[in-house]
Amino acid sequence: MAIRPVDLFTVVPSPEEERFDTLLSGKGPWRLERIVSAGQSSPRSFWYDQDEDEWVTLLSGRATLLFADDDGSTESVDLLPGQALLIPAHRRHRVTSTSAEPPCLWLALHGKST
Amino acid sequence: MAIRPVDLFTVVPSPEEERFDTLLSGKGPWRLERIVSAGQSSPRSFWYDQDEDEWVTLLSGRATLLFADDDGSTESVDLLPGQALLIPAHRRHRVTSTSAEPPCLWLALHGKST
Repeated sequence: MAIRPVDLFTVVPSPEEERFDTLLSGKGPWRLERIVSAGQSSPRSFWYDQDEDEWVTLLSGRATLLFADDDGSTESVDLLPGQALLIPAHRRHRVTSTSAEPPCLWLALHGKST
Repeated sequence: MAIRPVDLFTVVPSPEEERFDTLLSGKGPWRLERIVSAGQSSPRSFWYDQDEDEWVTLLSGRATLLFADDDGSTESVDLLPGQALLIPAHRRHRVTSTSAEPPCLWLALHGKST
């Protein structure tokens, strides 16, 4: 059976909406996702609050995430290509900004880490 | 708790041996690994024969993998940065070559996909 590489960058970014593609998933459960952003950000009143940990790696572009602590304080984190971070389950966060040129290509691994 | 990005590229490649770092793991089991190669290749008589699927993404460098079929035929696959491929469990393979300049930075996700 032929082995065919996939080029993660051959995806057309949309200025309208972010694109999410599941690349692989398994029991656990865990799920590897490609995300392509091009200028999008989370709504201002919105927080992601996820049941699982998320390991996110930025492959291209520039992005800024905002994290909230339970005491109401927030922390802004800039990401450059090649940088990765672990977002623990239920750590509230939102995407403050993503670059459109170049678009942001992310790899996100969702799962409960041990 | 402060969120600190990790720069996946701030690792010193070694001409002596490949470097393997587990970034994250969980039940399933699954395991996300960073691999840094700099000119290494698998021994000629060696085949990886893994119990789990492996999704491998090349982030920098150039690499060539060789895959074996049960009928004895082989297939060579070149990888460029941003390319990824799924190596099914028990698909025998070896690394034919990895570039030293720039070194090869890989993300490998090991697990049984569904």
